[in-house]
Amino acid sequence: MAVGYSILPHLLPVPGIRLGTTEAGIKYTKRRDLVVIELAESTQTAAVFTQNAFCAAPVHIAKAHLNEASPRYLLINTGNANAGTGHNGLEDSKQCCKLVAESVNCNANEVLPFSTGVIGESLVIDVFLAGIPQAVANLSESGWEDAAHGIMTTDTIAKGLSEELELNGKKITITGIAKGSGMIRPDMATMLAYIATDAAIDAPLLQTLLNSAVKRSFNRITVDGDTSTNDSCLLMATAHSGVQITENSEELHLFGNLLNSMLQKLAQLMIRDAEGATKFVTVEIDGGASEEECEAVAYTIAHSPLVKTALFASDPNWGRILAAVGRAGVMDLDLERIKIYLGDVLIVENGGRAESYTEARGQAAMDREEITIRVELARGEASATVWTSDLSYKYVEINAEYRS
Amino acid sequence: MAVGYSILPHLLPVPGIRLGTTEAGIKYTKRRDLVVIELAESTQTAAVFTQNAFCAAPVHIAKAHLNEASPRYLLINTGNANAGTGHNGLEDSKQCCKLVAESVNCNANEVLPFSTGVIGESLVIDVFLAGIPQAVANLSESGWEDAAHGIMTTDTIAKGLSEELELNGKKITITGIAKGSGMIRPDMATMLAYIATDAAIDAPLLQTLLNSAVKRSFNRITVDGDTSTNDSCLLMATAHSGVQITENSEELHLFGNLLNSMLQKLAQLMIRDAEGATKFVTVEIDGGASEEECEAVAYTIAHSPLVKTALFASDPNWGRILAAVGRAGVMDLDLERIKIYLGDVLIVENGGRAESYTEARGQAAMDREEITIRVELARGEASATVWTSDLSYKYVEINAEYRS
Repeated sequence: MAVGYSILPHLLPVPGIRLGTTEAGIKYTKRRDLVVIELAESTQTAAVFTQNAFCAAPVHIAKAHLNEASPRYLLINTGNANAGTGHNGLEDSKQCCKLVAESVNCNANEVLPFSTGVIGESLVIDVFLAGIPQAVANLSESGWEDAAHGIMTTDTIAKGLSEELELNGKKITITGIAKGSGMIRPDMATMLAYIATDAAIDAPLLQTLLNSAVKRSFNRITVDGDTSTNDSCLLMATAHSGVQITENSEELHLFGNLLNSMLQKLAQLMIRDAEGATKFVTVEIDGGASEEECEAVAYTIAHSPLVKTALFASDPNWGRILAAVGRAGVMDLDLERIKIYLGDVLIVENGGRAESYTEARGQAAMDREEITIRVELARGEASATVWTSDLSYKYVEINAEYRS
Repeated sequence: MAVGYSILPHLLPVPGIRLGTTEAGIKYTKRRDLVVIELAESTQTAAVFTQNAFCAAPVHIAKAHLNEASPRYLLINTGNANAGTGHNGLEDSKQCCKLVAESVNCNANEVLPFSTGVIGESLVIDVFLAGIPQAVANLSESGWEDAAHGIMTTDTIAKGLSEELELNGKKITITGIAKGSGMIRPDMATMLAYIATDAAIDAPLLQTLLNSAVKRSFNRITVDGDTSTNDSCLLMATAHSGVQITENSEELHLFGNLLNSMLQKLAQLMIRDAEGATKFVTVEIDGGASEEECEAVAYTIAHSPLVKTALFASDPNWGRILAAVGRAGVMDLDLERIKIYLGDVLIVENGGRAESYTEARGQAAMDREEITIRVELARGEASATVWTSDLSYKYVEINAEYRS
C-alpha cells in the first residue's frame, strides 16, 4: 500500500509518442511485462543511467546505441534485469533490439533496451520474439497508462503524471511514467523513468534539463541504500507542438521548473510505494556550510536502520536521530547550536532534549503517515532534502521472500 | 540466540583487578546493572572512544579524567546512556564519579564513568547513591563473570574470554569482557569492552597495542551501520605479574598477537549476538589496490539491506552481492576479473554467473549458520575482513519495540 497515493491519474498523450504494451510472459503469465515506445523522427532524447560499476547489459547497449544514432524505439521488459549475465547478456540485449528493428523496419541501433527484474538469469529470446510484434501492434498515443503498468515490478501502484504548460500562447504537454520501490538510492535506483514532451528542445539543452532535475529528485531518494545495476531515466522532446524552448529564455525557466517539480513528484511516488513503507519521510537539512554536508547528514539519517525502525514504530526516539547526525562525518559540528525538529516540534537543542519537548507532542508528530525530520546545522546557508521510507517487517518479508 | 556461542567461559582473575557488580535498579529491577572495577595503583590504562560527534556525557568526563590522573576505578551502568543530556548530563556523570570517590576514598578524577542504554533521559542520582556502595562491597578478583552480565543491555549472552601466556618462564593472564549487539559499526559501536592483563606495559605502548587491535576487531564489525554515542574500550595492565613487555621485544610480538586475536573474538561475539541475527557472516575482500578500497567493498556488502535480507532467507541471491560490489565507489574495477565466492562455491566470474555454479551448491553454502562471502578484486595485494549479521524480522521487532 502506497503512502498518500492510490490511483494513477489520467495521463495525457504527448503528440509524437506512441506506446504499446503486452503480456509477453517473461516471468509471470497474465501480467503486462513488455513495453515498446515509439518516438517521432523529430524527437531529441536525453538520458541518465546508473552509476553502478556492474551496470546491466541493456544499459551498456543503450549507451552504445545513443552514441550511434537518434533513438526511435524504446523496448522495456520487466521480470528479468539481464544483469550479471556477462557476454551472453550483451548479445541477448542486442538481439532484442534487432527484433524490434525487424518488426518496425528501423535500424537496431535506433532501439534502446531497458530491463528490470531478477539479476543473473538469461533472457529467453523466444518470449521476445512473440511479444514484440504484439506490443508494436498496440502502439497508441493513449498507451501511457498501460505502459505505466507494464514497467512495474514490486511496485504496488502504477506511477505517472501529466502537466500542461502554456508557452507563447501555445499549449505543450509533459507526461512521465516511472517504476521503482526498492533498491533505491542516489545515483539512480532500481528505477526506470520515461518523460516526454512535445516541446522542441535541442539535445544538449535537454540533457542539461534532465541532469538538473534528476539531481534533486531521483538522486535524492533512498529506501535501503542499494543502487541498481539497471537504472535509466529518459527525457524525450518530440517538437510536435512547434514550441521551441531555447537557452536563457523565459520558456526555459517555466519548463525547467515544471520538469523539476514533476520529477520530484515521480521520485516521491517511489518512496510512497517503497517496499514495506508505512511512512513517507522527508529529511530536510538546513544551515549547512555546503550542500554536500547537508546531503551527508540527510542520508546518514535516512539510511539508519535504527531511525527507520523507530519511524515504523512511530516512536519519537530522537536519540537515534541525534546519534545519526553525530556520525555523519561533518567536521567541527557545533552541537550546542544544532536544532532538530519532528514536524514542527522542536526535539533537540543545546545538545540535548529541548526544554519545550514533551513525549505527547513528539508522539503526535510521529503518529502521522507523512513525517518531516528537520535538522538546522546553524553553520551556513546550504540545504538539502532527501525522501525516504521506514523499515518494517514487510520490507524484510518482501526482500527475504521475493528474489528481485 | 547467538550464532555459534552459548555460554560464557570461566574468566580468569587478573591480579591487580577487582570487580564488583550489583542490581541498582537503574531501569529494571532484579537485573545486574552497575559495575565498579578497581585497578591496582600500578596499573597503566589505554582507551579508545566513539568517533560520534555527539558523544555522551560519560565519554566527555572519562576523557577529561584520563588527562588529569591515572584511573583507579571504573564505574559502568546500563539502562541509561546519559547521552543527549546536555550540561546536566555532564554534571550527573561527575556526580557519579564523586560518589565512587567518596565510597573508596580516592579523587573523583581517578574514576572513569561509562554508561549504556536509552539516550536522552537523565540519570537518577539516588539510584547510584544506593548502588555504588553495594558494588564496592562486592569487589573481588573473581568478579569478572558477574561484571560480564552487569554490562549487558540487549545482549542475549554475556561476552568474555581469558587467555594465559608464558613469557620468560612466567605466566601472564589476559581477561576481557564486552557488551554490544546493535548500533554496531566501525569507529566503535554501542559497545563497551574492558580488557585487563597483569603484564607490565608502559602507557604509550599499551595505547599502540590497543589502537592496533581495535582497528581490526571492534572497528571491523557492523550490524546496522549505526555508531553509538557511548562506545568505549579500555585496556589495563596492572604489572602484578612482574613480567615487563617492552618495545621491539619477542614478548611484545607474542602479547600483541594474542591481544589481537582476543579482541577479534570479542568483536565477533557481538556479531554472533547481533540483534535478530540468525547468521554469522564474514565478508572477506582480497586482491585490492589498498586496504581502504577493500574495506569500502566489504562494508557496502555488509550494510546492504538487500544482501542482509537474502542472507536471512538463505537465498543465494548473488546478484545482490554483485550489485553491492558495483556501487562501492571503487574506480576502474575490472569486472571481468572479479570473482565472488559463497563459502568455497565460486558464484561470479567474467562479469556474470560462474559456469560451474549450480543453484544447489549456492543453496548449500547459504544454508549454513556461518557464511563467508569472499570477493577477489584482482587488482592488488591488499585485503580486509568485516564481520556482520543478517537482517531478520527479529531485528525490526527489537528495534521497533525496544527504546534502546
